[in-house]
Amino acid sequence: MASDEFSIIDRYFSAVGKSAYRSRLAIGDDAAIVDVPADRQLVMSMDTLNSGVHFPQGADPADLACKALAVNLSDLAAMAAEPAWFLLSLTLPEIDEHWLQRFSDSLKQMAQTYQVELIGGDTCRGPLSITIQIAGLVPRDCYVTRAQARPGDLVVVSGELGNAALGLAHLQQKIQLPDDLQALCLASLNRPRPRLELTPFLSAFATAAIDLSDGLQGDLQHILAASGVGALIKRDHLPVNHWIKRHHAYQYALTGGDDYEICCTLAAARLGEVETWNQANPHCQLSVIGEITESGFYLQQGDALIDLSGSRGYQHFA
Amino acid sequence: MASDEFSIIDRYFSAVGKSAYRSRLAIGDDAAIVDVPADRQLVMSMDTLNSGVHFPQGADPADLACKALAVNLSDLAAMAAEPAWFLLSLTLPEIDEHWLQRFSDSLKQMAQTYQVELIGGDTCRGPLSITIQIAGLVPRDCYVTRAQARPGDLVVVSGELGNAALGLAHLQQKIQLPDDLQALCLASLNRPRPRLELTPFLSAFATAAIDLSDGLQGDLQHILAASGVGALIKRDHLPVNHWIKRHHAYQYALTGGDDYEICCTLAAARLGEVETWNQANPHCQLSVIGEITESGFYLQQGDALIDLSGSRGYQHFA
Repeated sequence: MASDEFSIIDRYFSAVGKSAYRSRLAIGDDAAIVDVPADRQLVMSMDTLNSGVHFPQGADPADLACKALAVNLSDLAAMAAEPAWFLLSLTLPEIDEHWLQRFSDSLKQMAQTYQVELIGGDTCRGPLSITIQIAGLVPRDCYVTRAQARPGDLVVVSGELGNAALGLAHLQQKIQLPDDLQALCLASLNRPRPRLELTPFLSAFATAAIDLSDGLQGDLQHILAASGVGALIKRDHLPVNHWIKRHHAYQYALTGGDDYEICCTLAAARLGEVETWNQANPHCQLSVIGEITESGFYLQQGDALIDLSGSRGYQHFA
Repeated sequence: MASDEFSIIDRYFSAVGKSAYRSRLAIGDDAAIVDVPADRQLVMSMDTLNSGVHFPQGADPADLACKALAVNLSDLAAMAAEPAWFLLSLTLPEIDEHWLQRFSDSLKQMAQTYQVELIGGDTCRGPLSITIQIAGLVPRDCYVTRAQARPGDLVVVSGELGNAALGLAHLQQKIQLPDDLQALCLASLNRPRPRLELTPFLSAFATAAIDLSDGLQGDLQHILAASGVGALIKRDHLPVNHWIKRHHAYQYALTGGDDYEICCTLAAARLGEVETWNQANPHCQLSVIGEITESGFYLQQGDALIDLSGSRGYQHFA
């Protein structure tokens, strides 16, 4: 019976994941020690999931572990980085062995899949909250930021947009999804897949990239602001499922959060690379949804241009 | 008026601290990018402070910023590392401009003092919680762990023990401290000073080290367990203030948490180095409190030996 902080760590978090970049000292001291290869730069990000805000009370701990790591891995994907290590701060209202076992089993599986090693962290008491800090590596100066998109660049997104938001709306009984989409959309919501397979592509071709956590409309605006440019995107080019098309419910794709797909920009001359990628990667299709312009941010819908610059996607404090 | 996550970050957290190791890309992208010098190893730790657990509701945000960073810096001190960068995840129940201003002013001051740069993080809504992940650097293989204490080594602690616990007991009206100790003990509790000045000393001489967050009794046992040794410490050698001596209240020094002093072990031949250090560092005095033995963990009190191995210090889930 795990009765204190130290036995919780020993029992549930002592051998989570392996990295190609093995730690020198992991869990069990005041801090972890790792070696960063001389030809790599370190990429650091941190994201928190709070009960009642990012997930409902009673959420499956296996989903939570998966999502908490995925949202951090997704930040690395957006920088074209490779995962290496992570730290976990887990705040728990009580010791629940079953919860901890499911959480740690799922965390181990995710960490194994993405070759990232848990090297430290903290456990404490309080309202359920999961913070992960992730460290990745990039070859020197090969990272991709939000700041280098140029007018004329293509705007490209991975996967389908809006599925996670549809899953949430379905759970909240705001909509009734058809059977064939329920599992897909709930998986998108609860077990997002960080698009780390795109790292070589982004590193080679992207001028800018961001991961879609708060919805395309808001997140693409971060690229536009950082790069000092505008964009025109075409509604009919948004990669969405048949339910969104049939119900003209494109707001899920534009402002729905939690997709964790990648939005990137590429020089127009790279269009052939998108086609080559799509032929080789049936499970990670890229869609050209528009282009970077000098200024403004518009959605083309038939003959109409809708100004998207006035509002942002999901805001935590709205 | 800061109305959302992005403007909170811009307004309060955009230029916090400077490091000798400047970031390549800090706040404002999906992740931060830093360069780790080829002759250094990376040292990583993460600690969370939760409202109602680690601090009372209504605590001064300036104290909270100070303590949240200090407890992480203290982990670096225990490894003999030098601070470089940190990430902050801040969960807030609401936007309170006054609170944020005091918090960020204090965080800036601490970050400036310890030359550590805020390079990223997260803000979200929920019960007040502060998680900091800190990254430091050590010359290759010059870090100090808990695992190399050897029988015959001296057990050494910095500063005075028990002051933070006395401050807490005073606040909780369990004791009444004399005027001359109140400010000192409350400062120990609310604004602990990470002992980073010890980094060169520990790096040169320590066989093992830990920072005292949960009390000497529990924390020294981590060194004993990791090193496979025992210890004998002498009650009358514990560095405590006059109130503890007069009231024979050594339990504050043994099991009181939150001191954030350093406990380390040194080969007995290094005793002269302790004296040299003490002459040069009047504000960071080291005290030899006992020695490492083959096994067991005892406190010598007059002629009596008290077994300390049976219990640990403060436990979060006790």
